[in-house]
Amino acid sequence: MLVTFLGTSGSIPTANRNLPSMAILRQSELFLFDCGEGTQRQMFIARVGFGRKTKIFITHMHGDHVLGLPGLFQTMSLLGREEPLEVFGPPGLQKFIEAFKKTVQFGLTFPVIVEEIRDGRSLYETRDYSIRCAQAEHSIPALAYGLFEKERPGRFHPEKAMALGIPKGPKWSQLQYNEPIALEGGRIVTPKEVTDPRRPGRKIVYSGDTKPSARLAKFAQGADLLVHDSTFGDDLQEKASEEGHSTASQAAQIAEQSKVSFLALFHLSARYVNPKILLEEAKQFFTNVFVAEDFMTLNISYKKT
Amino acid sequence: MLVTFLGTSGSIPTANRNLPSMAILRQSELFLFDCGEGTQRQMFIARVGFGRKTKIFITHMHGDHVLGLPGLFQTMSLLGREEPLEVFGPPGLQKFIEAFKKTVQFGLTFPVIVEEIRDGRSLYETRDYSIRCAQAEHSIPALAYGLFEKERPGRFHPEKAMALGIPKGPKWSQLQYNEPIALEGGRIVTPKEVTDPRRPGRKIVYSGDTKPSARLAKFAQGADLLVHDSTFGDDLQEKASEEGHSTASQAAQIAEQSKVSFLALFHLSARYVNPKILLEEAKQFFTNVFVAEDFMTLNISYKKT
Repeated sequence: MLVTFLGTSGSIPTANRNLPSMAILRQSELFLFDCGEGTQRQMFIARVGFGRKTKIFITHMHGDHVLGLPGLFQTMSLLGREEPLEVFGPPGLQKFIEAFKKTVQFGLTFPVIVEEIRDGRSLYETRDYSIRCAQAEHSIPALAYGLFEKERPGRFHPEKAMALGIPKGPKWSQLQYNEPIALEGGRIVTPKEVTDPRRPGRKIVYSGDTKPSARLAKFAQGADLLVHDSTFGDDLQEKASEEGHSTASQAAQIAEQSKVSFLALFHLSARYVNPKILLEEAKQFFTNVFVAEDFMTLNISYKKT
Repeated sequence: MLVTFLGTSGSIPTANRNLPSMAILRQSELFLFDCGEGTQRQMFIARVGFGRKTKIFITHMHGDHVLGLPGLFQTMSLLGREEPLEVFGPPGLQKFIEAFKKTVQFGLTFPVIVEEIRDGRSLYETRDYSIRCAQAEHSIPALAYGLFEKERPGRFHPEKAMALGIPKGPKWSQLQYNEPIALEGGRIVTPKEVTDPRRPGRKIVYSGDTKPSARLAKFAQGADLLVHDSTFGDDLQEKASEEGHSTASQAAQIAEQSKVSFLALFHLSARYVNPKILLEEAKQFFTNVFVAEDFMTLNISYKKT
């Protein structure tokens, strides 16, 4: 699973940081979190691809988080996309999308399915993962999102199955997918007898714009990667609080409470031309922390069990 | 007068070319022609400035030419702009601006004055220059724009005025600004006796998206710089015609007819990773031609008289 930061600045872009967007590529599926102005160009440069099965998750309706949608739709259309595109976000998203579809001339070649989220819950679920959201604490209604992989089957041991007299075939599958089976003589074999314990899936949480929040600390519990609002340094903690943002230190304290594996400082104010100070402040509270940079790609591997 | 290309691609951005926008800086005044997605970030990088007296001219309502407006307004607001901002463009512009003001949350700190242009004419005129427009030939209603400086007074020769017995003072001014004056004895002195001939102003024409057009060739007559749609090469002349665009060769033929000083090939399709072929095709028809590149800045000086 690859995480690529497409834009890491807050509110205003800089020469090195575009407006917020983060891509997760899981197998052949693309998940985009926020879509600031210029995201489509960042996607070109990062070679993320425009034709994939894609879902977009918008945290809130501030311009710097959504204004890249119209251009992305136009480019996908120019490239002939036909696959439907699903976009999730807070109330107001549908109206925004309708407004630019009506007032800018471009021929959409694919259906856009907008789902406005009115409560925190699982938004989308497959056999392998779910995408969930939680209310963040910002100046306007805002959401955090998480990709939660489900537990994977433990390693199957064919030699143990053979020793129990289970022939290779559908019964092996059943055991692998955690179902007990009956042998011909009536003996029941439980999955535990032939497989290792189930292995945890991976978990990535994207906070969007938010003040430090106990709810989000819980939501991010045990995540492999927490990407958290770190707009300001300690010098501007009051401003952060007033505007519904976090400082890098506060993000680190959330990471520490959540016992995440890694914290990415994200959504940096343009004033921190050198973000080293933010990193140093965060390190006081949490060691495995780094500053997200545009085009940085992380390979999130499974935790060793 | 400085011309800076902020984005030189057509329809889809590339790693090296952002969506269309061109800035003219004349004295302390900024004129922006088109505002593709990402223009605000290009303005940051080019250090064009967000607080100046600014007018924006939109050629047509295709997304790649207007989608940078909302983010630019938001950034100007975050930077505390109070000066009104004037935006000129075709019918539909007002509705587009109203739509995103209603559906995206950002607090505008300055008045936006939108003027929809329904006929080709002089849009704005001062003592020193006018901005004019002309209908282009595209797939939807589209405009070309030109900045036309007025003639400047010819050089004034104080020694000639002295020799004629004209005292230093308001009469010198009158002569410089092309008004005859009367001496005390009744003799009339004409401006010609004490000044060189009036000098031509500078002229820059921006075609926007257009097929080759006799009307625009006339509009651009004698321009110092013509920035012209050059979306395709000769290989795609048919496609260019179908979609309301020009090839580089066609742009060069217009430049030749208009007797402009320089032609910039602009709005290049993303397929021309190396635009050398476009330049070579254009050179068959017009010598003083170059490919516009993002962040290229030209100093347009007065023609020698």
